Amino acid sequence: MREVFQQELREVQERLVEIAGLVAESIDKATRSFNESDVSLAEEVIADDNRIDQAAIELDELAITILARQQPVARDLRIVVSALRISASLERMGDMSTHISQLARYRFPDKVVPKSLRPTFAEMGRLDVEIARKLVELLRTEDVAIAESIRNEDDRIDALHLSVFDKVLGEKWKGEAVDTVDATLASRYHERFADHAVSISKKVQYLATGDWVPEDA
Amino acid sequence: MREVFQQELREVQERLVEIAGLVAESIDKATRSFNESDVSLAEEVIADDNRIDQAAIELDELAITILARQQPVARDLRIVVSALRISASLERMGDMSTHISQLARYRFPDKVVPKSLRPTFAEMGRLDVEIARKLVELLRTEDVAIAESIRNEDDRIDALHLSVFDKVLGEKWKGEAVDTVDATLASRYHERFADHAVSISKKVQYLATGDWVPEDA
Repeated sequence: MREVFQQELREVQERLVEIAGLVAESIDKATRSFNESDVSLAEEVIADDNRIDQAAIELDELAITILARQQPVARDLRIVVSALRISASLERMGDMSTHISQLARYRFPDKVVPKSLRPTFAEMGRLDVEIARKLVELLRTEDVAIAESIRNEDDRIDALHLSVFDKVLGEKWKGEAVDTVDATLASRYHERFADHAVSISKKVQYLATGDWVPEDA
Repeated sequence: MREVFQQELREVQERLVEIAGLVAESIDKATRSFNESDVSLAEEVIADDNRIDQAAIELDELAITILARQQPVARDLRIVVSALRISASLERMGDMSTHISQLARYRFPDKVVPKSLRPTFAEMGRLDVEIARKLVELLRTEDVAIAESIRNEDDRIDALHLSVFDKVLGEKWKGEAVDTVDATLASRYHERFADHAVSISKKVQYLATGDWVPEDA
């Protein structure tokens, strides 16, 4: 029974890695569609989000089946519950990619944000892609050093998020309302994307070390 | 054993009702702090969010204890898993109230949005408060008619959300960048608040009818 359970846990882990891989691909494409106003890439991101949603639903069903069949307790139980939560966060990260691509699509053939902000968003996008790739590694290896590095990158995203508001609310800002709306939303989506990654990191850290981190700490 | 389980489920339900009550109070105060630029009320909302977070963590711990002790299967298992998800959504709804109040606090002593948009935000706030109160009733009674009515109100919020963008991006918009940012964020927070309520409604509908609705359908 124990062996079957361990095997099922590995299956859960592999699926989480797989979903995180889809999310990494999705934020990479979303960022490129945003930076380059590539509307067909944007549409690809939007269409592919369904695969992430579906994979998350299937993972949830697997986790519930494991709970029912294996009746895990103590740490084993928390591992399965954590998997459910990680899957929900990954699904939301896919939504953020979609939202970023939707902005690119709405404004096409115009670019989404004015020139002065493009380097900032290019950097936010680059960091989110890096965070997503690290998340794949973290879920695969449970190496807590990666969790730490994700948190550091989240701090940089937060700083960039604040800098967007500084710019948009500064005296030199010449953008029109549409630029302000897009910058506000895009910045928020990038920031939320990274937040979800941090939230997942905390859960993986628990799985690796046994230190339970409450959902919203 | 079955009787103990039923009693524990009632305890879970009561706690969800209680947390939803805190959320209803929080969005009511957040909306008032926003409409009336009441900075002390805004600070109350921000400080009280901790109670919602704490109550959600405790509910999660209770649910995990029930999973471990009662080892529920089939529908019973899904009820407990649903409770975990409902608690996560309620916690996020509290965060949205907090964000709305933070906007009021940041702009104080100025009002958050220009006159032309205040009726729209007053209406979004009114609807979100109504939705939160209905959620309390829904969680208490499991009356699926309430779930339906929450969905209808969410449709109205979505329409108002779009109307904010129409206004902000329209030719008559005279707002400064700060008004555009605030309107964009406030509208997004109200919309997300209602989305979470709909997501909870679907889960309660399952609890009442047995029709399982996947996490993100």
